[in-house]
Amino acid sequence: MHRSRVAAIAIDVPAEHEDDTVRFWTGALGTEAQTLGDEYTTVGHVAGREVFVQRVDAPARYHLDIETDDVDAEVARLEALGATKVEQVRSWWIMRDPAGQRFCVVPPQTQDFPGDATVWD
Amino acid sequence: MHRSRVAAIAIDVPAEHEDDTVRFWTGALGTEAQTLGDEYTTVGHVAGREVFVQRVDAPARYHLDIETDDVDAEVARLEALGATKVEQVRSWWIMRDPAGQRFCVVPPQTQDFPGDATVWD
Repeated sequence: MHRSRVAAIAIDVPAEHEDDTVRFWTGALGTEAQTLGDEYTTVGHVAGREVFVQRVDAPARYHLDIETDDVDAEVARLEALGATKVEQVRSWWIMRDPAGQRFCVVPPQTQDFPGDATVWD
Repeated sequence: MHRSRVAAIAIDVPAEHEDDTVRFWTGALGTEAQTLGDEYTTVGHVAGREVFVQRVDAPARYHLDIETDDVDAEVARLEALGATKVEQVRSWWIMRDPAGQRFCVVPPQTQDFPGDATVWD
């Protein structure tokens, strides 16, 4: 048994757009920026789930984070549904959905996990 | 005074990936697909906010929907923060953030709006 849920919406941007993107989304969401680490900045929350800007060496894109108490089991479950692995980064996996959109499978990152997470047998 | 909040996460896909994307995300989120209209299919919810797949004539991408009780006022507010208009479609506007990522400003679409929406003076 393991659990998972969507934990965050990420707005990935190349370095040259990091500042204006953080400024825009904090304004749009009515919040203050909170630096989370070198390349991560929280810009707000949607119904308790984090929205963050991530500096990447790639064109701008959104991605979703799925948090789980068993990353390997969740990755296997999502592969069986048609997703593919892109790359393992420290404790998480970058994956793609069938149309190629990125998402990450990460250890729990919300304070109230598992909360309303779905239980998978 | 008007109000706004993020209402939905959209997964835009070209027609050839509509079925596998709907199948993947309903499986990932543990839900059943609900057709909302010709090109829209709800594939789940994140903390009460909708996740839907939209068939588009473009490469796959995510976008966010911001719902508001005054579309014109919200579009003007977001333009002042650095967003740009892409196109008006019926009652909503497609816009881009400073890094070029799409989002839409739409009339209220959640049942409990305004709920936790932010009030803008």
